[in-house]
Amino acid sequence: MPITVVGSIAFDSVKTPFGERERMLGGAAVHFALAASFFEEVRVVGPVGEDFSDHHMEAMRTRGVNVSDVQRIAGGRTFFWRGEYGWDLNSRETLDTQLGVFEGFQPKLSQQSRASDVLFLANIQPDLQRDVRAQMPHARFVALDSMNLWIEVARDSLVSAIASVDCVILNDAELRQLTGKPNLVSAAREVLSWKRSAAAGDGPSVIVAKQGEYGAALVTRSGFFALPAYPLETVIDPTGAGDTFAGGLVGYIAAHSQEELSDELLRRAMARATVLASFNVEAFGTERIERLTREEIAARLRELRAITQFSSAP
Amino acid sequence: MPITVVGSIAFDSVKTPFGERERMLGGAAVHFALAASFFEEVRVVGPVGEDFSDHHMEAMRTRGVNVSDVQRIAGGRTFFWRGEYGWDLNSRETLDTQLGVFEGFQPKLSQQSRASDVLFLANIQPDLQRDVRAQMPHARFVALDSMNLWIEVARDSLVSAIASVDCVILNDAELRQLTGKPNLVSAAREVLSWKRSAAAGDGPSVIVAKQGEYGAALVTRSGFFALPAYPLETVIDPTGAGDTFAGGLVGYIAAHSQEELSDELLRRAMARATVLASFNVEAFGTERIERLTREEIAARLRELRAITQFSSAP
Repeated sequence: MPITVVGSIAFDSVKTPFGERERMLGGAAVHFALAASFFEEVRVVGPVGEDFSDHHMEAMRTRGVNVSDVQRIAGGRTFFWRGEYGWDLNSRETLDTQLGVFEGFQPKLSQQSRASDVLFLANIQPDLQRDVRAQMPHARFVALDSMNLWIEVARDSLVSAIASVDCVILNDAELRQLTGKPNLVSAAREVLSWKRSAAAGDGPSVIVAKQGEYGAALVTRSGFFALPAYPLETVIDPTGAGDTFAGGLVGYIAAHSQEELSDELLRRAMARATVLASFNVEAFGTERIERLTREEIAARLRELRAITQFSSAP
Repeated sequence: MPITVVGSIAFDSVKTPFGERERMLGGAAVHFALAASFFEEVRVVGPVGEDFSDHHMEAMRTRGVNVSDVQRIAGGRTFFWRGEYGWDLNSRETLDTQLGVFEGFQPKLSQQSRASDVLFLANIQPDLQRDVRAQMPHARFVALDSMNLWIEVARDSLVSAIASVDCVILNDAELRQLTGKPNLVSAAREVLSWKRSAAAGDGPSVIVAKQGEYGAALVTRSGFFALPAYPLETVIDPTGAGDTFAGGLVGYIAAHSQEELSDELLRRAMARATVLASFNVEAFGTERIERLTREEIAARLRELRAITQFSSAP
């Protein structure tokens, strides 16, 4: 089933211990779409400025991403982020953020984008996430990402947004912050209890906690699953790893929409997410994913299975 | 093959968000021995003071641990530690440390203890670890733990100690600190390259990085393996989890000494280590492990396999 993703399209200037790059193609919606494109058709909704060239658009088009809902704002400038990572790549400092055309962004989905059965609400202001969700009332699978900022300044709106989706994908620290529960399982169970309304009785059924270099955990009403990160000796740039992870996860689920959304399917999706994210961090920005092949994904999936198996011998 | 463990026997006073306990039985050698006792015969070497009662000794004896090399020092006081954990149990503050009989401890192994084929050097001053290692030149499998303090104040001695063992078990942060390499795989590879001497050419062949609530990773010359922690909704007291983990790991390896030390065996040992550690944190001090059964271990092992498996379906 086609996927619509709403989120940032950006230029990122990044410095890591391994080098630096100026104004690379980036943004949550871009990283998500490139990863998800290995599994399913993706439509990107988001604004760019006049500084966003056809060359940048081409990177997405080459991977089959539909960019017809990317709005180029006359006279505007594309969202810009500058950051620097510490020696162990686990800490990063934001040096500059220029919202540009993202300021005052009001997502308007075309009829085609609204027709997607799967929606990913990348990390944007939760009011906007709720607005987009409302434009796609019939979507069959909706996932959401967020960040510490929105937990701090717009928690109520974020909780409402979460109650309106099927799947929540957050860093584990964010999940703890959001719920006030330091224990991962308890925190996830808390979010699983959030209903759209007492009467409606639905709300999220899938919680994914991203744990950075440690991997990721999945909590559903029926089970728990955890997967380590794929071990890499060389990590160049973690920017976009979380969105790439989400793209692999949601992309795989969308491509298997004929199946029931079982824990078994979700686990396979977690494996794709883990593998896609591991490729993303091997080069700056979108470089690695742009040249990634299906064969490489399949090979690393086999390796991921191999490094997580132990025998049942007594 | 019988195991000898040299390390601290202690009284711990611990406060966590879930309660507090005064002067519980604790110490690295104790936690290690209780866990390893589920798999193999264990002999504990370490000093205690006159305040260490038969009741405390009985806790070890009940689990079949051989305490005949526990030295009771006349007029001495048992090593004492007081600590308090933060809300998420990931940070802890040491409020008091009284070395007592541990000050000036010179391990003298009896002939029986020296005859063990397996040795665990719990976290003590690296000079002492080297001294004990030298007393057991024919041990077939030697593992070592350490801590940030020794990396800071006695790094050269610790590096020598590491070069004289087969297996290094450290927290992942300590492994990074020890090697100056932020990347886990690179850090582990670095330690794998440390030889006892250029001529001797051996040195450690097994590196285990403990990652707390995230689990643990295993790096050998031939492979990588990672296992998440067993998910618990209630963690009461993490004290001793690392030593309990080591006890499960080394205990299982010792019990399977007729097998070659393959990655396959090490992975099974990692699973036991993970399960034992998960039980340890469910209650204060040694309470949970003291009442643990083999059936509970077997059941949780099956669950651990279940929560780490994903299918190879495309």
